Amino acid sequence: MTLTMYERIGHEGRRPSPYSWRIRYAFAHKGIEPAFRHVRFADVEAIRALSGQHLVPIVTNGERVIHDSWNIACHLEDRFPDRPKLFPGGQRGVVRLVNHWADNTLGTAIRRLIAARFILCLDPGDRAYYRSSREAAFGCTLEDYCADRPRWLAEFAAITAPLERTLGEQPYIAGAAPGYADYIGFSMFQYARLGCPDEFLADGTALRRWRDGLVRMFDGFGDRYPAYPA
Amino acid sequence: MTLTMYERIGHEGRRPSPYSWRIRYAFAHKGIEPAFRHVRFADVEAIRALSGQHLVPIVTNGERVIHDSWNIACHLEDRFPDRPKLFPGGQRGVVRLVNHWADNTLGTAIRRLIAARFILCLDPGDRAYYRSSREAAFGCTLEDYCADRPRWLAEFAAITAPLERTLGEQPYIAGAAPGYADYIGFSMFQYARLGCPDEFLADGTALRRWRDGLVRMFDGFGDRYPAYPA
Repeated sequence: MTLTMYERIGHEGRRPSPYSWRIRYAFAHKGIEPAFRHVRFADVEAIRALSGQHLVPIVTNGERVIHDSWNIACHLEDRFPDRPKLFPGGQRGVVRLVNHWADNTLGTAIRRLIAARFILCLDPGDRAYYRSSREAAFGCTLEDYCADRPRWLAEFAAITAPLERTLGEQPYIAGAAPGYADYIGFSMFQYARLGCPDEFLADGTALRRWRDGLVRMFDGFGDRYPAYPA
Repeated sequence: MTLTMYERIGHEGRRPSPYSWRIRYAFAHKGIEPAFRHVRFADVEAIRALSGQHLVPIVTNGERVIHDSWNIACHLEDRFPDRPKLFPGGQRGVVRLVNHWADNTLGTAIRRLIAARFILCLDPGDRAYYRSSREAAFGCTLEDYCADRPRWLAEFAAITAPLERTLGEQPYIAGAAPGYADYIGFSMFQYARLGCPDEFLADGTALRRWRDGLVRMFDGFGDRYPAYPA
């Protein structure tokens, strides 16, 4: 196999990107080990030259260049149909909604809690790019974006309530066994866990039990790289 | 078959309840016509006597009394496995998350827009019960609960963005054909559409196209009962 995954690497080997985590887990679920190529946060032009756009992860499979984590997951599922299913049965359509919900609703709620401290995960040479691009998008400083913490903690609790209820009733989002729906959700909590020193999931909750179980999967894959800079 | 559905009826035959809509559509999807029994909003004690709790819909199948719309949908799927699937393939687990999301996140966003005007859908004899029970739950008057309309319209747009994106890419939440995931989402937009005079879904959006298609399904089932009181 000639699969290669381009992933973003932060300060001293840190890997907080949610989009890369869901693809790392998708590869592990399929039992495929890609070659990894590392890119930095500010390597925008190199990524664009490869794929015609500026986001990672990117996966190449021989001549094919696939970008956008959803497209990569679908490619792995369709090219390796005999390996364990990322979308068991007819799940793919509904999981697309979970994907958009995680990227938009859940991702925004987490970003409000961590964006200001996330910068320490990045290579020092990438921090100015991160700050200026995010502050332009947010229309305010990173610190102001995260300032009203009680509000954003309440928002996070409201947004994650459906997940907590679901995982109180069944072991995984996908049902009895994990699927890509779980890796999507998990990737966002990895982003929170590795991108910030705080723990947002209380002991004893279903979400915490589920997330910690996913951290331990695949020989503790979720803890393979350095944690938030102490 | 001896299936009976207990559903709530409002002012002059109005039926705005989202939990009943998803079950009406689930029956129609399975090609099953239950007998309908009508209950009023304030018939709490009669409902409790039947099922041990106070919410509708309730479905009875012979001796069995099933409450909670999720349990009813699962019962229909498991008892009638040869009829069209509500959860094609391995969808049930992921759809449970969609269900909790719709009831909590989406339902709350819609309630903020319609709760004050919803009262006119109810039988005049039920309105005092609705107002007092909701105002106790909300901790304010219905009018105050809905007062900051620009904020709740922005919230509705943010909450529905993942649905709009998904339905811009595929015809149904469940994928190529509708499933219970669609009926869950649709039921909430029926609640908005029948429970309030406003149209919240703009012309030309994917959500509007999807919702209008679902209204027309099953011989225009979504328009079978009276609209919001003029």
